[in-house]
Amino acid sequence: MATDIKTYLGEKRALVDTFLNDYFSRKAEPALLSEAMNYSLSAGGKRIRPVLCLASFEVCGGDSSFIVPYAAAIEFVHTYSLIHDDLPAMDDDDLRRGKPTNHKVYGEAVAILAGDALLTEAFSILAEPTKILAPESRLRAIAELASASGMRGMVAGQVQDMLSENAEPDENTLRFIHRHKTAALLSASVRIGAILGQADPGRMNALAGYGENIGLAFQVVDDILDVTGDTSVIGKPKGSDERKKKLTYPRLFGIERSRAIAEEMIIAARDALKDFGPEADPLRGIASYLLSRSH
Amino acid sequence: MATDIKTYLGEKRALVDTFLNDYFSRKAEPALLSEAMNYSLSAGGKRIRPVLCLASFEVCGGDSSFIVPYAAAIEFVHTYSLIHDDLPAMDDDDLRRGKPTNHKVYGEAVAILAGDALLTEAFSILAEPTKILAPESRLRAIAELASASGMRGMVAGQVQDMLSENAEPDENTLRFIHRHKTAALLSASVRIGAILGQADPGRMNALAGYGENIGLAFQVVDDILDVTGDTSVIGKPKGSDERKKKLTYPRLFGIERSRAIAEEMIIAARDALKDFGPEADPLRGIASYLLSRSH
Repeated sequence: MATDIKTYLGEKRALVDTFLNDYFSRKAEPALLSEAMNYSLSAGGKRIRPVLCLASFEVCGGDSSFIVPYAAAIEFVHTYSLIHDDLPAMDDDDLRRGKPTNHKVYGEAVAILAGDALLTEAFSILAEPTKILAPESRLRAIAELASASGMRGMVAGQVQDMLSENAEPDENTLRFIHRHKTAALLSASVRIGAILGQADPGRMNALAGYGENIGLAFQVVDDILDVTGDTSVIGKPKGSDERKKKLTYPRLFGIERSRAIAEEMIIAARDALKDFGPEADPLRGIASYLLSRSH
Repeated sequence: MATDIKTYLGEKRALVDTFLNDYFSRKAEPALLSEAMNYSLSAGGKRIRPVLCLASFEVCGGDSSFIVPYAAAIEFVHTYSLIHDDLPAMDDDDLRRGKPTNHKVYGEAVAILAGDALLTEAFSILAEPTKILAPESRLRAIAELASASGMRGMVAGQVQDMLSENAEPDENTLRFIHRHKTAALLSASVRIGAILGQADPGRMNALAGYGENIGLAFQVVDDILDVTGDTSVIGKPKGSDERKKKLTYPRLFGIERSRAIAEEMIIAARDALKDFGPEADPLRGIASYLLSRSH
């Protein structure tokens, strides 16, 4: 199983990476802007959001190679959020995925604009004319992505995260931050796959339940890795949450209890898939793979 | 006519303002984020982009009160672009529409995020479920808005604008900046009205021609006002383009020649409407009103 899921992740990631490479082979002026956008997009990462979207689409019986652009659009949104998060006015990080952050290479102004353009381009891709998917599904996917990313989603989490630095640890606030800042886009990735796959209400509910739990677990594991991981694996110096006095699961509950929380969420995620057959094995495998990273 | 168009602009602006006020009466956490978004959205402005969208929709025979949210979504995009433009890393402006800029009030981090959330929310509004408009039209409107705002539109213009500060004046670069930074979103406003109004190809072409010319004229007039206007009218200290060594029409051609260029564009805009009857009077009036500001 462990090998299978790694193969699956590698294959889907390659599909997404090919799309992203092709996208930036089209010329756009000024070249500096595309270069800055592509710099952060091509800096790697596991493409876990697009892969979740593709795997969820497959549960609905679709051939996921048709929706690679839509899945990749989610990575545009994720990458914009990383570029803006790293800015001096925000987390002021110099390293991301082991490489200098966007503003370190291109300066703050271009980094802000590259982020803006990546966010905009995601919607451009989702709205592009195609005959493959029903217009209603694509509109719902756009609504889902915008809702997960905006003032009631990711951006809300980011603002609350900033407001909570140096604040008294508080479980409700921690949950709010995680639910919005990270889990919203991850679970939207699963739901967008289900929407594009025209899932019936039962399937949609099950996949949404999986998405919510995997989204929450992801951030808990990330918090744990920031304490226990090594720089080469996490792509940035470990202990950076601690230095910034970020509100995290390990800070509030300690490492052992945080691992137990992540495990509960992963069990809940896998449990949400219980009525599916082998078509949901990739989603199950992603859940187990995620948990294995925290140990 | 002059009185008529002012009444029209006032009425449509009131519709847009009512929608925007209502939008932010819905509670969202953290309150600071909505407050920062609303601060810049409610700072005023003529709402010229939404009004162009409504007026263009009316040329296609529609009752524009139905599409106020979609027109207002364009103002979200415009406002986000102003907030980001004003940032210290960009134009570093302290005043906008006569009030302190967003980052002066809320700090840089919140200003960046408020801009991000406004951009995202625009797509949320356009994708929201409704039975009024055909899904195909709304997808086309989203594609139009994203294309006009992103790496092949407004953001491209903004990057080129920055790259051209202190550079040798060059007409092609000036045209590129204006076409992308300002004209793209203005002409998209007209085209989105036509798309939502399901304009036939002939109407669409005529309206697109109007939009392109009005978009270009708008920036020329703005450049002129930066030299000749007074602070109370333009909402920022005059001469700021000159101080920043921005590439502008007056810098390249002088005031008189710039006025003549604006006039040619306005004539071309009105000319594009020649086959329409009185239903296009508001668009004609907006063109003439715009030109009158440059004198």
